Amino acid sequence: MVPGTRLGTRTLFHHWISPSARKVRLALHEKRIDVQEHVQADWERDEAFLALNPAGEVPVLLEPNGVIISDGQTICEYLEEICPDTPLLPGNIFHRAEARRLTAWFDHKFQREVTIPLVSEKLMRRVLGRGSPDSRNIRAGRTNIHMHLAYITWLTERRKWLAGDNMTLADLTAAAHLSLVDYTGDVPWDEHPFARNWYARIKSRPCFRTLLADVVPGVPPARHYADLDF
Amino acid sequence: MVPGTRLGTRTLFHHWISPSARKVRLALHEKRIDVQEHVQADWERDEAFLALNPAGEVPVLLEPNGVIISDGQTICEYLEEICPDTPLLPGNIFHRAEARRLTAWFDHKFQREVTIPLVSEKLMRRVLGRGSPDSRNIRAGRTNIHMHLAYITWLTERRKWLAGDNMTLADLTAAAHLSLVDYTGDVPWDEHPFARNWYARIKSRPCFRTLLADVVPGVPPARHYADLDF
Repeated sequence: MVPGTRLGTRTLFHHWISPSARKVRLALHEKRIDVQEHVQADWERDEAFLALNPAGEVPVLLEPNGVIISDGQTICEYLEEICPDTPLLPGNIFHRAEARRLTAWFDHKFQREVTIPLVSEKLMRRVLGRGSPDSRNIRAGRTNIHMHLAYITWLTERRKWLAGDNMTLADLTAAAHLSLVDYTGDVPWDEHPFARNWYARIKSRPCFRTLLADVVPGVPPARHYADLDF
Repeated sequence: MVPGTRLGTRTLFHHWISPSARKVRLALHEKRIDVQEHVQADWERDEAFLALNPAGEVPVLLEPNGVIISDGQTICEYLEEICPDTPLLPGNIFHRAEARRLTAWFDHKFQREVTIPLVSEKLMRRVLGRGSPDSRNIRAGRTNIHMHLAYITWLTERRKWLAGDNMTLADLTAAAHLSLVDYTGDVPWDEHPFARNWYARIKSRPCFRTLLADVVPGVPPARHYADLDF
């Protein structure tokens, strides 16, 4: 029996500062799938957790039947298959590819260029007590974020949501990453009003409430973090 | 009209040293989907290519109807949907999640821990004429690869292929990355005979022939690279 779990319960192993876990939490709530959340500090060696996911990373979904699903995007594809009634990927094959392309954009490109330089430096270092952030990384992340917010603007000037007429996993993924950067107060919303409008729409959805209540121990959020009128 | 393409033809923009493009080439050949291959040096700024994929990365698939699909995993999911007769993802929902989990393992964890430190240092630097490789990265990649080969051994002692009884996208993804490392001669096959047996099985498939014929200009492959009895 894995510590922190109950047999017959769906359990998500996550951590507040994992963008991939945030995306899965948004998808679960959007699809109204009940889940017990278990906070896992995945940078600490934990044999029971490694037995669940040898990659040693959150998120991990433990299903009521004992099946383990890990890797954020894999979990989202799985949730889409078990719960297609609230779709997060469009029905049209080309639109679905577009939603997956933008999901990968934020999970990999945004992650590499913004989330890691900013969030790893500011949040992870404080959580781990590893001293002051490296100002070169902070500067790089703060420069790079403008290109991504401009891309969100470009997309939402042409479409209602990032990948088309409906909200998709691409929006949830972008918002999961941005919510973390926003926690540290590093999103220059004032310079990107269209991107802010898009984020305000997604931030006001019921699925977002769980993220807005997050408080990373020892690191309070920026003042406007949970404010729907930011 | 995009240079290097013909209207009504399916075109893949790829480069030999992109593991993600190698994976897509394997998937296309495994599914026997005809494609015109166009080599794109995606580190050089090329406005026509950026118009296809603003992320500026190969692989990009240009469909005969003009639709553009980009991001390696997105292309593979798309190919699976348009050509389900030669499945690369299992029919069972849990097995499919397992295949996607292992695909992500190699595309992200192996990529970060092995492909980037070894292949970026040895191949990319020579292609770009950026001088000698950084020996710390080479050393890290050579150390890390043992854990991954041990994991392949662990999996293939229990299963016929990485994710189960059938060959899946997980095998193609792992082989795409390993084929690049093997090109530089840095896979310690002698110390991992079970992993070698698995690789020999996948290397002898017809879909692999295209990769084995690859020669990166200016950087000849290791002697055993194309040898099926390595």
